[in-house]
Amino acid sequence: MVKKPSEEEMALLYGQDVLSAKTLTFDQLQLILKTAAYYEDALVNKRRLYDMDGKIMASLFFEASTRTRLSFEAAMHRLGGSVVTVSETPQMQTSSTAKGETLHDAIRVVDGYVDVIVVRSPMTGAAQEAADAADHPVINAGDGTGQHPTQALLDIYTVLKEHGRIEGLKVAMLGDLKYGRTVHSLVYFLKHYGCDMIFVSPPQLMMPPEITAELRGEGIKVEETSDLKAAVAEADILYVTRIQRERFPSKEEYESVKDSYIVNDEVVAVAKEGMSILHPLPRVNEIAVSVDSYPGAAYFRQAHNGVPIRMALLALTTGNVR
Amino acid sequence: MVKKPSEEEMALLYGQDVLSAKTLTFDQLQLILKTAAYYEDALVNKRRLYDMDGKIMASLFFEASTRTRLSFEAAMHRLGGSVVTVSETPQMQTSSTAKGETLHDAIRVVDGYVDVIVVRSPMTGAAQEAADAADHPVINAGDGTGQHPTQALLDIYTVLKEHGRIEGLKVAMLGDLKYGRTVHSLVYFLKHYGCDMIFVSPPQLMMPPEITAELRGEGIKVEETSDLKAAVAEADILYVTRIQRERFPSKEEYESVKDSYIVNDEVVAVAKEGMSILHPLPRVNEIAVSVDSYPGAAYFRQAHNGVPIRMALLALTTGNVR
Amino acid sequence: MVKKPSEEEMALLYGQDVLSAKTLTFDQLQLILKTAAYYEDALVNKRRLYDMDGKIMASLFFEASTRTRLSFEAAMHRLGGSVVTVSETPQMQTSSTAKGETLHDAIRVVDGYVDVIVVRSPMTGAAQEAADAADHPVINAGDGTGQHPTQALLDIYTVLKEHGRIEGLKVAMLGDLKYGRTVHSLVYFLKHYGCDMIFVSPPQLMMPPEITAELRGEGIKVEETSDLKAAVAEADILYVTRIQRERFPSKEEYESVKDSYIVNDEVVAVAKEGMSILHPLPRVNEIAVSVDSYPGAAYFRQAHNGVPIRMALLALTTGNVR
Repeated sequence: MVKKPSEEEMALLYGQDVLSAKTLTFDQLQLILKTAAYYEDALVNKRRLYDMDGKIMASLFFEASTRTRLSFEAAMHRLGGSVVTVSETPQMQTSSTAKGETLHDAIRVVDGYVDVIVVRSPMTGAAQEAADAADHPVINAGDGTGQHPTQALLDIYTVLKEHGRIEGLKVAMLGDLKYGRTVHSLVYFLKHYGCDMIFVSPPQLMMPPEITAELRGEGIKVEETSDLKAAVAEADILYVTRIQRERFPSKEEYESVKDSYIVNDEVVAVAKEGMSILHPLPRVNEIAVSVDSYPGAAYFRQAHNGVPIRMALLALTTGNVR
Repeated sequence: MVKKPSEEEMALLYGQDVLSAKTLTFDQLQLILKTAAYYEDALVNKRRLYDMDGKIMASLFFEASTRTRLSFEAAMHRLGGSVVTVSETPQMQTSSTAKGETLHDAIRVVDGYVDVIVVRSPMTGAAQEAADAADHPVINAGDGTGQHPTQALLDIYTVLKEHGRIEGLKVAMLGDLKYGRTVHSLVYFLKHYGCDMIFVSPPQLMMPPEITAELRGEGIKVEETSDLKAAVAEADILYVTRIQRERFPSKEEYESVKDSYIVNDEVVAVAKEGMSILHPLPRVNEIAVSVDSYPGAAYFRQAHNGVPIRMALLALTTGNVR
Repeated sequence: MVKKPSEEEMALLYGQDVLSAKTLTFDQLQLILKTAAYYEDALVNKRRLYDMDGKIMASLFFEASTRTRLSFEAAMHRLGGSVVTVSETPQMQTSSTAKGETLHDAIRVVDGYVDVIVVRSPMTGAAQEAADAADHPVINAGDGTGQHPTQALLDIYTVLKEHGRIEGLKVAMLGDLKYGRTVHSLVYFLKHYGCDMIFVSPPQLMMPPEITAELRGEGIKVEETSDLKAAVAEADILYVTRIQRERFPSKEEYESVKDSYIVNDEVVAVAKEGMSILHPLPRVNEIAVSVDSYPGAAYFRQAHNGVPIRMALLALTTGNVR
């Protein structure tokens, strides 16, 4: 049985909000990974948990995100807790319009009904606004172009689980590195562990130079390339994201590059032994379905890791790890 | 620990529907307030309740009302029960059209799945129609221009909690007194306790004369005014409601009065010592945000009181107060 | 107390999907009816069940079907389990479009969150596609023009409950026998018991000849008629379905026949003593409201039978009958 964190460790997140990857300290990150492993062990061994028995989570999804919502709700149920849900209602999402209620007021009301609040919103900054209004912990389930810290946490947890370690791994990131918020957050976590990085993208969608500069400034080895096969030949992890047509000035330009960034059997054939493939999902065609049977195809396991990660966050922030 | 009601008292609501404020007797009202206090004590002391363990509530919201819905659902979960939800589906809401199913049939089916039904509908009379179809208790969560008894109950409960008594208080009501169903129900409850009342509104939105006549006929002291500051100088409670632009024949007429009915720091400055401010929420701009920090600003506490009030109603009507 | 099935019997459905009436063996059908009776006895006697305590059901309704959804969710709650819901979201329902995620991927993700999946979709074949993607049992709650096996199961269970037996009954089926998927599935089940059948419909909507041929080939006595009164004079069961205007080439043609297929007091007056009336609901005007008070009007009891039937399916497929 995996050991649960000590009281002292757990104090690091008790009563805290989880709003962005960047505001988590390394110790908090380690605590979350450790607690997730503790809960995953319970799930695997089908131990019935009562950690959040009698507690209520508000699942406030002002924007559709079925995967993330169900993962949070399943996490709360696995902890023995209850859930009240708002799904895709445009109501309550306007921040300070003359017609409607502010998000602040809406959250302050719901805060009195529940013990922890999960909020997803199309508005950048909504999670911070919710946290300012609530006394109970708020967990950001994605707010516009802002943050989506629980995705980054399940990504790094997946790296750890697939390889047994994070230190010393070489991580290739593929696709839209310019706009992809998941890769930006993941890079931030990987940096703590000194991972080498390879950024693979079309020139139009390269990692923002301020990020590569910051990484290099902290001693991280960074390569940038548009050659996917060269990258997979030496990477331990390939993190794939979708390249959206809308990011390109013309359809022609998009069509000319897109096939170079598809992960198919040919790409897998030249990959380093034991390479893992991750993807935040949903996947469209950037990974061929035939790749799913490759042992290193970890993206569905990655999605499933959302449950123990979110269990850890719910129980740690409310002080209910038992 | 707050005492729970006696078996004899509880019999007053067992098996009953809660359809309107007016059909509640004074003894039933007293029972609800007493039971809400009992449950609030349990919530404050974090006692895990099993009163409705194994029971199911149908939360049928044929009209969006997130605040009310989540409050009912949280109440059921706090009692240890389960919830099935219909949220904002237009389906099932048509009463007797050729195309669709009647509300009667829809409710009669759901009645066989659950132990108690909460129904919200845009149609006046829907709650009565549901109650006629169901064997289990039906609680009206608002039906069109009809009734919204649980709002009135949490309002009167808030008056009691904020002041420790209801008798002898002077209550000012502000805003749209003509159409506001919440003030009409609240007036009905306050009358039982002999409260003095001050109705503050623009001339277009005065309390209907039949209500003021009825109150005066029963010996209640009623003042009518359009002077907010004069009213707050002597009121123990200020109950604020929104004035909607649509109620006025022209935008000009609305603009000319609206600022006289906004509760801001200036208004609070001349209020009687210890005055409480209530509002059914959502609030738009009829109470300035700066007023939130005033100790008497009770509207968020009021919203939170919805949980113990609804716990009381769910447990009393089904005979599950334990 | 009704006896629960033996371990050996229960093995017949453990780990199985329930996708269509036709893929259920007669032994599986008998097991489901027996287990439903066992659970109904628990419901009637208000025994609190923990059979699926700690387990989660995904209630994935990619098409609105409030009755079926609430019935499944109530069933899971009555078994002590938890539910996560997707209701009417068009997202995730497209099967293999360029833009969106496949149903396969969506189900494979959710499969990692839960213990059993209930899926409703407007797409024929969606349930099979879901079952192919999931490791956990999938129960089809209706997929397009395909199958709706749980409706057929609650229908046959209702026949058994209303008459104490199925063998030897004469069953009349009324309405749209050409397109109605419920009658096709029910016929398939009734055949196992050697029931005589009377098919009552306008000529445009007769039972497909391949079905009547198959029945007759297996020795079932089949009559076809458009005379409702003659049919009810000898039937033990009258199974009513709606005749939709859209099925007719012209409004005139529809108008000319529709009144001949309405079940009203006049029809009931000539019915065989003890005849039961069933209907899958929702009912529009094909059964007069006045018929509801007839003792044999079984359609609301039929709808309520959905709960024990679905409890049986959830618990049997996951191996949780305790």
